[in-house]
Amino acid sequence: MFQLIKKSKKSQARLGVLTTAHGKIATPFFMPIATKAAVKSLTAKEVKDLGAQIILSNTYHNLLRPGLEVIKKHGNLHKFMNNDLPILTDSGGYQVFSLAKLRKIKGDDIEFQSHIDGKLYILNPQKVIDIQVILGSDIMMVLDECVGLPATKKEALKALERTSAWAKISWDYKNKLNKKSGSIKKQLIFGIVQGGDFKDLRLRSAKEITSLSFDGYAVGGLAVGEPSKTMYKVLDYTVPELPENKTRYLMGVGYPENIIEAVKRGIDMFDCVIPTREARHGKLYLWKQSKSSRLPRPSAMLRARNDWYKTINITNAKFAKDKSPINSTNLKNYSLSYLHHLFKTQEPLALRLATINNLSFYLDLMKEIRQAIKLGRL
Amino acid sequence: MFQLIKKSKKSQARLGVLTTAHGKIATPFFMPIATKAAVKSLTAKEVKDLGAQIILSNTYHNLLRPGLEVIKKHGNLHKFMNNDLPILTDSGGYQVFSLAKLRKIKGDDIEFQSHIDGKLYILNPQKVIDIQVILGSDIMMVLDECVGLPATKKEALKALERTSAWAKISWDYKNKLNKKSGSIKKQLIFGIVQGGDFKDLRLRSAKEITSLSFDGYAVGGLAVGEPSKTMYKVLDYTVPELPENKTRYLMGVGYPENIIEAVKRGIDMFDCVIPTREARHGKLYLWKQSKSSRLPRPSAMLRARNDWYKTINITNAKFAKDKSPINSTNLKNYSLSYLHHLFKTQEPLALRLATINNLSFYLDLMKEIRQAIKLGRL
Repeated sequence: MFQLIKKSKKSQARLGVLTTAHGKIATPFFMPIATKAAVKSLTAKEVKDLGAQIILSNTYHNLLRPGLEVIKKHGNLHKFMNNDLPILTDSGGYQVFSLAKLRKIKGDDIEFQSHIDGKLYILNPQKVIDIQVILGSDIMMVLDECVGLPATKKEALKALERTSAWAKISWDYKNKLNKKSGSIKKQLIFGIVQGGDFKDLRLRSAKEITSLSFDGYAVGGLAVGEPSKTMYKVLDYTVPELPENKTRYLMGVGYPENIIEAVKRGIDMFDCVIPTREARHGKLYLWKQSKSSRLPRPSAMLRARNDWYKTINITNAKFAKDKSPINSTNLKNYSLSYLHHLFKTQEPLALRLATINNLSFYLDLMKEIRQAIKLGRL
Repeated sequence: MFQLIKKSKKSQARLGVLTTAHGKIATPFFMPIATKAAVKSLTAKEVKDLGAQIILSNTYHNLLRPGLEVIKKHGNLHKFMNNDLPILTDSGGYQVFSLAKLRKIKGDDIEFQSHIDGKLYILNPQKVIDIQVILGSDIMMVLDECVGLPATKKEALKALERTSAWAKISWDYKNKLNKKSGSIKKQLIFGIVQGGDFKDLRLRSAKEITSLSFDGYAVGGLAVGEPSKTMYKVLDYTVPELPENKTRYLMGVGYPENIIEAVKRGIDMFDCVIPTREARHGKLYLWKQSKSSRLPRPSAMLRARNDWYKTINITNAKFAKDKSPINSTNLKNYSLSYLHHLFKTQEPLALRLATINNLSFYLDLMKEIRQAIKLGRL
């Protein structure tokens, strides 16, 4: 599934190719988020044209609306949303704990109420796989328990143990299904390492999860309130415990500098709401480009944040008369002034242009990162 | 400016070409509306690709936001919104009377307050032209007074007289500017006929307005609350009073059947918020197509409304599981079920797909109408 192409001599960064049922993906990569079976304001074709190789959709949201019956009727989530890119789906566990009401855990069952209409649902490790089989996910995630940070060691340990137990159940169940269906066998499944910011717990979790031969491994439980320094420290001791011949996924991360730091520590996959969510509020990610080249040199990109990119809030009055282009690539014919106007007048095109800008920034960043590794500069 | 290519033998319908500073337009045509310098959720390039030959933007809205200084800085409205299609702008008068607060008419000055921030503005026939010069409109409209229907004869007469007086001022002022600047000379200016639903007033208004040699003539004061029958009757006696060698514009109309009936009565130009506004509420315009052809035969199109198109409300529960495509042309890979889901989850892509469908319908309708006239079927 994963082919390692090059390992950096300067860091733990690596280049590779991940093969899924819907195509090959060059690593390291970033997954734009299509929470409710749509990337905010864009068609899947547009997201692909911006350079996305895969998107992420949320199991919890798809389960509630449109519901599995509708997805089944269309064949899978790809057909439902007219998307031919690979799709990774999360397990839904995170949303059950953050969005749903009235949660009860009985054995391995999590009982919860929809945050929309109060309808009762039950998830457990097997059901989460069944749902992702129906969605037709190229990469499914196992059900885990994620604790926010800071957490006590007791809390982190309890989540770790449940995560390990559920991982074993998931692994056994997926293998059982693999024997029944060739198409299910092609759906990859990733395990998730937990353990908070406790080194011994992370090492234990990594050992337990990697003892099951998943198609890839995620580091979960980060980007949950901790400082970046803590995140990097956890990666420093956790990533080396993950097998080199499998893809490594840092869930829910992050800011551009977080992504670079994680790539340097051996991470291959990222997803984050930042580019799409912040677009909604008019926050734009922009390269501080030199006049001669579209993107900064990789060496510049690896310096401190302010050296190579900036963020602006386009709703700020100072952009009202700023004729400069939004960016120098795909939005060079739209001015900052025009985008400011669209936000001020609440024109729906505002969200689109901002989303296109931010996703381009993130996807171009990943291209630059791959190029930097290739050239031995990262 | 206007070249008449063919006159129907079956009706007053005509084929022609209108030449503007931004290109030639085949008549009869429909103008999608970009009220605040954007067609709801679409780029100008997309609107063009759907088959639009020209768009309409609103002087009142552009005056208030972003304001003339911003437009001036960009050169014109085309550059501001990154649009290379011709643009028609209304005079702003209609919005002053329907949206603005605290209106006072002193002589030829209309003093009003912005509905957004209460700021005071004054419009008069000359200022309305000055603004449209700044916007760079390919077609400017003169300031007129439009009364809603039903109206008393006294009200209609008063509006007619003011409209005629303002038309004369506009005509003189535009001619003065033409002498100063070649680029202003290329901006067409249209007069507007008023007169409510009173035949004698319409004939008088037509006579007065057409005594000024405008580049085209609009029938105003329709689609303001009257039944379609009244609209057709007014057109029956008004359109023959308009010169054959100039474009004829029916302002603010309308439903597909209104457009066909007006074309049969000699109208060449239309604009209406229906396709874009109703898209926002999930109302879709759909061809009742036969399986063998994309669009109905012109003869079918001219029969009663229900014979050739239908409208549906996509938010209706019955579409939740309907796998059929939205339409058989540019949205054939998106199901009604998916669009229903996007509306139910308030995904911004919902508005886009619905707008694309409805504008395609209207623009395809105009293509069919031109084809029908060409083939001698309308």
